[in-house]
Amino acid sequence: MREDAKTPQRHAERMAKKQRIMQDRIARADKDQGVLLVLTGPGKGKSSSGFGMLARALGHGYKVGVVQFIKGAFSTGEEAFFRDLPNVDYHVMGEGYTWDTQDRERDVAAAEAAWEVARKMLRDDSYHLVLLDELNIALRYDYLDLDTVLDDLQNRPPLQHAVVTGRYAPKELIELADTVTEMKIVKHAFKDQGIRAQKGVEL
Amino acid sequence: MREDAKTPQRHAERMAKKQRIMQDRIARADKDQGVLLVLTGPGKGKSSSGFGMLARALGHGYKVGVVQFIKGAFSTGEEAFFRDLPNVDYHVMGEGYTWDTQDRERDVAAAEAAWEVARKMLRDDSYHLVLLDELNIALRYDYLDLDTVLDDLQNRPPLQHAVVTGRYAPKELIELADTVTEMKIVKHAFKDQGIRAQKGVEL
Repeated sequence: MREDAKTPQRHAERMAKKQRIMQDRIARADKDQGVLLVLTGPGKGKSSSGFGMLARALGHGYKVGVVQFIKGAFSTGEEAFFRDLPNVDYHVMGEGYTWDTQDRERDVAAAEAAWEVARKMLRDDSYHLVLLDELNIALRYDYLDLDTVLDDLQNRPPLQHAVVTGRYAPKELIELADTVTEMKIVKHAFKDQGIRAQKGVEL
Repeated sequence: MREDAKTPQRHAERMAKKQRIMQDRIARADKDQGVLLVLTGPGKGKSSSGFGMLARALGHGYKVGVVQFIKGAFSTGEEAFFRDLPNVDYHVMGEGYTWDTQDRERDVAAAEAAWEVARKMLRDDSYHLVLLDELNIALRYDYLDLDTVLDDLQNRPPLQHAVVTGRYAPKELIELADTVTEMKIVKHAFKDQGIRAQKGVEL
C-alpha cells in the first residue's frame, strides 16, 4: 500500500501554487477554466461517470484523451464504443498488473509507460478533457510516483479538464482537486445478492 | 415535497414479488438478468454515470432508450452526442418544469407525458437498457405517481436494465432497486470556490 507523498517540500509548493491559481480564478470568475475532478469511493459508477463526461465533451465537439490504468481480461463496452470515434485518443495500459510481489517491476513498468501517454495529453492543450481511468489504483499500489503524477496534473494547460477515477484516491490528490465525489454503496446486486456482473451495464 | 407511496398494499405486493424474483435469480445465478440501478445523492456524476452505462451498452451493440425528466435552458452535451446515434431512442421532456405552484398542473402534465414514453420502453424487450435521467426529481415533487412508476419498473422485461438518476431517490425505489450508489460531495469547485459550471464537463 501507498505511503504519503514523499516530499513535504513539493507538497507545500503545490499547495502554494494552488492558492495562487485559486486567487487568479476568483479574480476572473466568469472565465472558463479547467477543472480537476476526482471520482472515488467503493460505490458503482466512477468509471461510468468519467465516460459520461467524455461523451458530454464530445457532444460539444471537443477533443478528448483517455488512458485506462487497469486492464480487465475482456474488452469493455466503453473501449468498443469510444476508441474509434473521431476526436478520441484512447490508450489502454499494455499489460494488466500481476497484482503480486513476484513481478512488481513489470507492474511498475506498465503503469509508468501508461503515465508517459497521459503526460503527453496533460501537456497538450488541444485536449479539452483527459480521463485517467482507475489511476487511483496505480497510485494505491505505488506503481506510480505520487509527486510526479500530482505535478503533471497541476501543470496541465489552464483550460484543460482532468478526470481521475478509482477507489482510494490519495488525500494529496483530493487536496489538489477542484471537485471530488465519493461513491458510496447503498446496496449492490452483485455483492449482496450473488448476481454476477451484467454485460452492458457493469462491464 | 413527496409523501410516501400511498398504497401500503401495493408496496407489500411489490416486495413479495421482489422476493419471488430474487429467489428465482438465486436459482439461476449464472444467467443474465436485468438490474435496476439507482444513482442518487448530492455529489456530481449521477447523470454522467448513467450516460457512461449507456455508452457501455452501445459498445456491446445493444439498443438503449433515454428519457430525460428535466430540461435545462440549453442543449446538453449528452443530448448532442447521443441523440442521433443508431440504437439510441432519446426523449427529452417537452417543457421544463415551472418549479412553482402557479402552474403545477403543467409540470405534472409534462412529467406524465414523459413517463408515457418511458413506459413504452419499459414494456419493450428490444431495449437492453433504459436510462431515466433525473426521474427522482419528478418523484420528489410528486409530478408522477410513485406507485405507478415503481410498478412499471418492476414489470419491465426480465433481461432489461433500468438506470434511474437524480437526488432524493425515494426510499421505496431504493428498496426495489438491485444496486444503489449514493454520490457524496467531498468538495465541489462550483460551490466551494465560486467557479462556474464548465461546459464539456458539467454541462
